[in-house]
This record gives sequence, C-alpha cells and structure tokens, in this order.
Amino acid sequence: MTTTTSAIAAAAPGAQLAPTTIERRDLRPDDVLIDIAYAGICHSDLHQVKEDWGSSIFPMVPGHEIAGVVAAVGSSVTKYQVGDRVGVGCMVDSCGECEYCRAGTEQFCVKGNVQTYNGVGFDGENTYGGYSRQVVVKDAFVCRIPEGIGLDVAAPLLCAGITTYSPLRQWGAGPGKKVAVVGLGGLGHMAVKLAVAMGAEVTVLSQSLKKQEDGFKLGAKDYYATGDESTFEVLAGRFDVILNTVSAKLPIDAYLGMLRVGGAMVNVGAPAESLEYNAFSLLGGNKMLAGSMIGGIAQTQEMLDFCAEHGVGAEIETITADQVNTAYERVENSDVRYRFVIDASTIGA
Amino acid sequence: MTTTTSAIAAAAPGAQLAPTTIERRDLRPDDVLIDIAYAGICHSDLHQVKEDWGSSIFPMVPGHEIAGVVAAVGSSVTKYQVGDRVGVGCMVDSCGECEYCRAGTEQFCVKGNVQTYNGVGFDGENTYGGYSRQVVVKDAFVCRIPEGIGLDVAAPLLCAGITTYSPLRQWGAGPGKKVAVVGLGGLGHMAVKLAVAMGAEVTVLSQSLKKQEDGFKLGAKDYYATGDESTFEVLAGRFDVILNTVSAKLPIDAYLGMLRVGGAMVNVGAPAESLEYNAFSLLGGNKMLAGSMIGGIAQTQEMLDFCAEHGVGAEIETITADQVNTAYERVENSDVRYRFVIDASTIGA
Repeated sequence: MTTTTSAIAAAAPGAQLAPTTIERRDLRPDDVLIDIAYAGICHSDLHQVKEDWGSSIFPMVPGHEIAGVVAAVGSSVTKYQVGDRVGVGCMVDSCGECEYCRAGTEQFCVKGNVQTYNGVGFDGENTYGGYSRQVVVKDAFVCRIPEGIGLDVAAPLLCAGITTYSPLRQWGAGPGKKVAVVGLGGLGHMAVKLAVAMGAEVTVLSQSLKKQEDGFKLGAKDYYATGDESTFEVLAGRFDVILNTVSAKLPIDAYLGMLRVGGAMVNVGAPAESLEYNAFSLLGGNKMLAGSMIGGIAQTQEMLDFCAEHGVGAEIETITADQVNTAYERVENSDVRYRFVIDASTIGA
Repeated sequence: MTTTTSAIAAAAPGAQLAPTTIERRDLRPDDVLIDIAYAGICHSDLHQVKEDWGSSIFPMVPGHEIAGVVAAVGSSVTKYQVGDRVGVGCMVDSCGECEYCRAGTEQFCVKGNVQTYNGVGFDGENTYGGYSRQVVVKDAFVCRIPEGIGLDVAAPLLCAGITTYSPLRQWGAGPGKKVAVVGLGGLGHMAVKLAVAMGAEVTVLSQSLKKQEDGFKLGAKDYYATGDESTFEVLAGRFDVILNTVSAKLPIDAYLGMLRVGGAMVNVGAPAESLEYNAFSLLGGNKMLAGSMIGGIAQTQEMLDFCAEHGVGAEIETITADQVNTAYERVENSDVRYRFVIDASTIGA
C-alpha cells in the first residue's frame, strides 16, 4: 500500500528534469507524512543528476532541503502533530546504534546513513527527495521549523544552513573571532549570515568584488577579491577561521597564510581533484586544515532554533516546477542570489 | 667583556664540524651561565649546517638540546642557583610582549623568537648553540631538569621531547585514545614513550618491521609496516591521532583513511616538497590535518616534570666530541637508536 504523489525527476544521468509521479510508503508507526511547501535546489543535486560523484540511482527525484507541514503521523509518533511546520535535510535514516549515531552525528553512521534521495533505505527501497508534493520520513529525521521563519527561506537551511553552521560552531565562531568565508554562493551567503549572527567579525573572500554590496548587506565587515594577489598580503595572519565553501582548486598555502596562529581552514566545498599544501604552512603556526560534512539531526534542530532566534533565513529566488531546468542552468553559471527554492504546490499542478 | 669557551663549529655550509673557541657574553642581570653536560644532535642541526632550509649563519655551533648545571647567575636571577640542573631548548629569547608570548607560546612571537643557534639576538649578536662547554641564556628561557632524570637522557627532551609532547597534549592523547606514531626515529621514539606515559594506546607506523622489537619495548601496543599496502586497510578508521614525525612525502589521503571520525593527523615532520590531499578525505569524517612547532617555555617545563614523574627519557647513544662528524653521517643514514648525545666535557678536552 502506497500513496501516489507528483514529483520532478531525472530519468537518466544528465537528463532534463520532468514531471512524473512516485509512490510514497504508507506510514509506519514512527513515520511522518509531510506536505512539502518548498524544496531548495542545492548544487549537489546537479552533481548527482550528472553523476559527477559516481553512479546515481535513476529515476532521481532530487531535493534535500525540504520544508513543509505535517499531514499525518504514524501510530507511535508523539513528537509531531498534523499541522506542525517541519523540515527534512540530507538524511532520512541511520542505524541509530553505532557510536556516531549515539553521539548525534548520524551523518557518520558506520552502516552509512540513508540519503534523502539517490539512496537506498534499510528496507531496500530507493529514496526520492523533495522535488515532490509529499514525502514520508521517519520522525527522528524530521526537524521542527520554528514560527517566525518562512518555510520558503527555511528550506535551504536544511542543507546549506547546517553545512555551514556546524563547522562555525565547531571552530568557535563568535564574539572576538575573525571569520573569513570563501565564496559567496548558496553555502557562502549562509555562512556569512550565521557567522555574523554568532557575533564573529566576518570577511568575504570572493574571486571578484562583484557581489561586494550583497556581502555588506549580509553583515560582512570586509570584502576582498582573491583575484587580487595583494589580498593575501594584506590579510596575512588575520583569521581565526577560514570557511571554504567553494569547490575550486585553491592555492591552500596562500590561504593558510591568512590564518592566525592556531587558526583553521575548514572545507565544506571540495573539488574532485587533489589539493596541494606544504607541511611548513601548518607547522609555522600550529594551523589546521579541516573538513566538515553537514551536521547531525540534533544540531540541525539547534541551527533552526538559532536561525529563528536571530531572524536568519536564506536569500532565495522562488520558482515554479516548470522553471527547474532553467534554474539548473543558472546554478551552473553561478547566476543565483543565493538559492533557488521550488514552490512545491506547482509540482504536478 | 666576554668568556671564551670551547665549542664545535661548522665554518661554512656543509663543512665538517671542527673544534674551535667562541665568546659567551658576560652575565646580564637576568642571565644564567650554564656548564653544559650534554647536547643532543637533532636532525635539524644537519639541515641547518647544510642550508637545507635557506641560508644559515657561519661559523655555526649547532645544538638546541642542552642539559647542564648552573655555574653562575646574574644579579637579578632568583629562579636558579649555582648547581641547579637545567636545560635549554630551541629558543633563547622572544619579545615577551606580544599576544603569543603572553600566552606562553614564545615560538610564535610576532617579532620572531631568537633561536638558540643560527639566530641573531635582539642585541644584534649571533647565537651559538649547545655543542659547547658553556652557554649564557636569559633565565626565562632556562628550564629546570628535575632530579631523577639523567642529564644525558634529558638533553633530547628539550627539542624532540617538547616537539612531540605539545601536539600529543593538544590533541588529547590519553586513556581511551588510539594514537599512531609515524616513524620511529629521534622524534618518533619520544612520541611513543610520551603517548604511552599519557595512557594512550600507541601504534607505530614504520616503513618496515625492522625496529618492531624496539617499538614494543618502548610501550607500543601495535606495530605496522607502511610499506605493506594492507596496513592501510587493516587500520582503516582506527586512530584518534596520527602524529607524523617523518619528513617524507607521505600519501596523505591513505593516512587520513586510518583516522576515526573527528580524528587529526598532526605533522611535526615536514618535507620540503608539497603534499597532496583530496578535500573529501577531510570532509568524509570531519577530519583534520594539523601542524605543530615545538612548544612554549612553560609547556617545556611541564613536559620535563611529566617525564620525571613517569620515568621518561630519551634512548641515547653518548659520543665524544671527536665522533660528531661520524654521528652526522649515521643520522643521515637513520643509523641511530635513537638520539646521539655529545658528552660536552670532551669538547676542547
């Protein structure tokens, strides 16, 4: 027994997205049925449709930035009620028993977490994401979206938000700390907003000064072009944390030179090719190169609560279902300020 | 007014070391005159004699692993008395005023710390190191060597000891933590002894199993050959900390694969050429690549006290002054278990 729902899917690697219908499972005791209101378009959706990161499962319904309203709950669900505003991010299940799941870092589940789409559930069924009218998700992987954040600007928080919030917290962004954000795209603009809300002094490092005005509006105190070599001299030894949100092959040693003693350069963007660094760039000031991958469910909830408290949402451009292929082209061309969000009511309408 | 003392010096880049005499300054109010008992031979001595790291100052009296006895003190020195057992490491001065000096991390002094040798003091005078009968050092850069450690086995602690102690402390080596030490040389054997004394479970990762028996004697629980590719599979996801003490161009991604989620690979050894890594190797488990450079004076004292408490000293081979060039050759060939220490009483004797 399943429920049929409208969706947007890619039928094969690199295919255009097209309307379709998919089946959602009937509610298990711990499931929540969500009427999706908005689904963000993350650059990783494009990568997976195009199989940039290895083979994907098709047909694919992308979307792991989901915001909506609870439409029904399973018999044992007590945390949510019909009408609750909720969100779903990159994961919909994990083993729940390993040390990482028990520590609230389900993204590192030793059995592998179940991805919201392009994944296979522990029941053997393929998962389909948020470019859809409805989705069924285990209650433990559903977060509450507090009143005071629109569901549209909340959707991107479920991936872009937590991906940047988690390392900013881990590396101590806050009052008295100087944080640089590399790249002002979907992830970068969230990083700026979040780091500013945490009380850090934020500098944007972008290839050019094209988006400088936006950067200042988002709360950045400084904005430098990395295309200008003098930037690396001017900012030598400046930052406690450099959060890199771009997937380009950066000159790592030059970036490490902008860190203070004991500072960290944290990568949430990652190019496919290898990066180079000289170990002396780390030794010279007890510096660190780190990576960070999304965040656990508890921290995702913490992030949503933080955003509500500080009035932080994504900067979005809302589109209808029929605009999604154009939106993909524009994401490829970095022509979005700063996140596309699909109005799910237009899917199958 | 100066004091003439016997020393061993290299007259020019790459020259053999030869007996000579040098002048030590008369005591300033905050100076300590030390009769040197032993001076360790650090691999960095060889690098600096050969100008591997850029141009050096000649003549050069190497040596920054100094243990001896106080022979005289300046008028304002209260911390030390004649007869006290003391040590001097890599630094003999720093500005004392910058944020890093005030934080006890003089190695990162913004004005640059004054190196024990191959450096220039704030008075404009060249510094000469521990391959000598006597040395004059500002009291704040002299550490106390507790009773219960021989001065001979204590000498290498002043560089090899603090270089490994500091990152092991920073990265939480202790009970319940799995620490891998890459390389079993001068630094590596100290890292094993210190990490074991801290209560960590220690694994040695060496190119071959040649020194396996030594590794177990030093307290390691496991010993693997990195020349055997299966090592990287067997140890996948094993370690909280990998402390790399070698200067070879390691396959960083393979090493990162042996870290647990949230684990750190810390480099104290560093090759001149660049290293390569893929950012996904860091992202996949919130992992870290870090560097660590010696340690501050307060931490050096803490390390010496820790070593006395736990009966930790270096494994040494004591040589006379006339054996130093042969010892250098043997260090080049990794033919020392594990540190040469010069008996300073044989210098100029």
